[in-house]
Amino acid sequence: MIENTSPRTVRFFIAGLGNIGRRFMSLVASQEGILAARYGLRLVPVGAADSSGAALDPAGLDASRIVAMKEARQGVAGYPSAGRPGLAVRQALAEAAPDLFVEATPTNLRDAEPGLGCIRDALGHGTPVVTASKGPLVLAYQELMGLAARSGVRLGFSATVAGGLPTVNLGRRDLAGSTVQRVEGILNGTTNYILTTMAEEGLSFDEALAEARRRGHAEADPSLDVDGWDAAAKLLIVASSVLHRPTTLADIDVEGIRGVTPRHLAQASRMGKVIKLLALAERVDDDYRLSVHPTALERVHPLARLSSWQMGVRYTTDTMGVITAVIDEPDPWPTAAAVLRDVIDVFGS
Amino acid sequence: MIENTSPRTVRFFIAGLGNIGRRFMSLVASQEGILAARYGLRLVPVGAADSSGAALDPAGLDASRIVAMKEARQGVAGYPSAGRPGLAVRQALAEAAPDLFVEATPTNLRDAEPGLGCIRDALGHGTPVVTASKGPLVLAYQELMGLAARSGVRLGFSATVAGGLPTVNLGRRDLAGSTVQRVEGILNGTTNYILTTMAEEGLSFDEALAEARRRGHAEADPSLDVDGWDAAAKLLIVASSVLHRPTTLADIDVEGIRGVTPRHLAQASRMGKVIKLLALAERVDDDYRLSVHPTALERVHPLARLSSWQMGVRYTTDTMGVITAVIDEPDPWPTAAAVLRDVIDVFGS
Repeated sequence: MIENTSPRTVRFFIAGLGNIGRRFMSLVASQEGILAARYGLRLVPVGAADSSGAALDPAGLDASRIVAMKEARQGVAGYPSAGRPGLAVRQALAEAAPDLFVEATPTNLRDAEPGLGCIRDALGHGTPVVTASKGPLVLAYQELMGLAARSGVRLGFSATVAGGLPTVNLGRRDLAGSTVQRVEGILNGTTNYILTTMAEEGLSFDEALAEARRRGHAEADPSLDVDGWDAAAKLLIVASSVLHRPTTLADIDVEGIRGVTPRHLAQASRMGKVIKLLALAERVDDDYRLSVHPTALERVHPLARLSSWQMGVRYTTDTMGVITAVIDEPDPWPTAAAVLRDVIDVFGS
Repeated sequence: MIENTSPRTVRFFIAGLGNIGRRFMSLVASQEGILAARYGLRLVPVGAADSSGAALDPAGLDASRIVAMKEARQGVAGYPSAGRPGLAVRQALAEAAPDLFVEATPTNLRDAEPGLGCIRDALGHGTPVVTASKGPLVLAYQELMGLAARSGVRLGFSATVAGGLPTVNLGRRDLAGSTVQRVEGILNGTTNYILTTMAEEGLSFDEALAEARRRGHAEADPSLDVDGWDAAAKLLIVASSVLHRPTTLADIDVEGIRGVTPRHLAQASRMGKVIKLLALAERVDDDYRLSVHPTALERVHPLARLSSWQMGVRYTTDTMGVITAVIDEPDPWPTAAAVLRDVIDVFGS
């Protein structure tokens, strides 16, 4: 902890100003005092990019102003005098030459662009990166970690697996020295909301999905969530980082929740069980078997008790006991806060 | 992660070879391969001390041999050729001049000796310290952290608060950037065992305490546990480290469980509640109100569900949601493993 010394200035560039990026900018403004007093940090946005283009100012943009623009549904390219309509994000990042690159573009498991290209550029230039996007890690975890190691900089990604829940940090740091025998996770909020609503209100999958959409808990195209790919992407990141197992999506046996009916849920309930979309890694010989499946958990299982708004993970280890962590996360704020904790982790003293 | 390079040798001295110290030595031996492969570390004991004296060998003692001696109830001073009967621990530490001091002496909240003196010596000489003892932190947290900062070395203590449960790491690292509004913890295993046994088997406090003793879950002098001081010591460490609030035991309102009767438990149960010894920090204005009390928690409260073998903590924050972590910890292994994780944290790459 630093006290009574002037804070270290970190000039950052952010790509993506949606649910997470916008809230991160809001935290940069609201937590300014804590960042300086506790961690000796002063975060200054020198560039920001969204689908409209970018805004660049080496002297610093106003984080609160960007938040206000995004809340008014304006593109950042309209930022007075600093706006650069249509400027491509990689070019904007290159021009900004920041101390830190914050990546918060929408998830895309196809080619992970433009996030992946930007992260490669940043790490290649020796710029630390904090990302909230799963795509680049899903497609290129080993490459990016190797690039970071060769450049001697950090790549923070604790926000990518269940947002504020310290799934990755817990596994990598707090279980260090032990061997993980089993990981069980409820890592996707949308499917947990849908399954909980189906069970509690007797709705069909389609009705519960419609309800989730009405309340803003499901995307217009919900397939990433309901077909299990979001949970699988998170499991891949856990397997790669915590289990030290290079993994691709093809290594994971994935089944979504479209086939779950009220009858399945009622049947499970009569047997004292609850159906959840479980991401699972089981140690088999010297490897792990990885899967995402709707799974009937005993009602006393700590993850069976999760409500609509919760996500959770349980690690079973050889020497560190069994550790379960659960987060109440009704909105995207904890994910944005997780991006900030990674920034503090990389730069804080 | 280091691969294909020779591991870094860390010559360490350990004080205290009881439940935790002995198991730590066992892990040093059993996890040797993982430590080298994953973290680039080779841990070599060059000194060890217990109530019999010490053993010192600059070329390295055999960790497994020390474990075998302690399991056979022999003092380490009897170590062949390296044994030094009656040598005081501070002198032994000074002679060893290690790269790391591991402190695992029995808890002592009175003067915290000999641990406190040893930690002062080590930090003063620029030697990193990992401790499993609460005493030194309870009596001198600010002094020791200041000393570590001035010497530019780390003082790891994640094992002191509920052993393997990453209570402190979660609060300090994973909630970084947020403000904690409330901490609730079930941080003492003995009292949780006693209260659970009283509730489940209808025993009186004295009967349940006797049962805990028979099973090895209570000390001969159980007052540190049952009068709430162990939980208070842990809360003090959380307040000092996570809440950034310099704290003494006198700041905490402490009540143990001797006054809890089967009638209280039954009454609570009828109201849908469970009585637990709750360590609590509540944000009030710009400060925290700290207490340890037998507390009736709603049965749906995540900490009300803890079984005899579990400990847990719940952090309520402003920006990071509400995070609960629970550990199944039926024996001292996870605490010893937590000492190892701190060593990895200080030296690992």
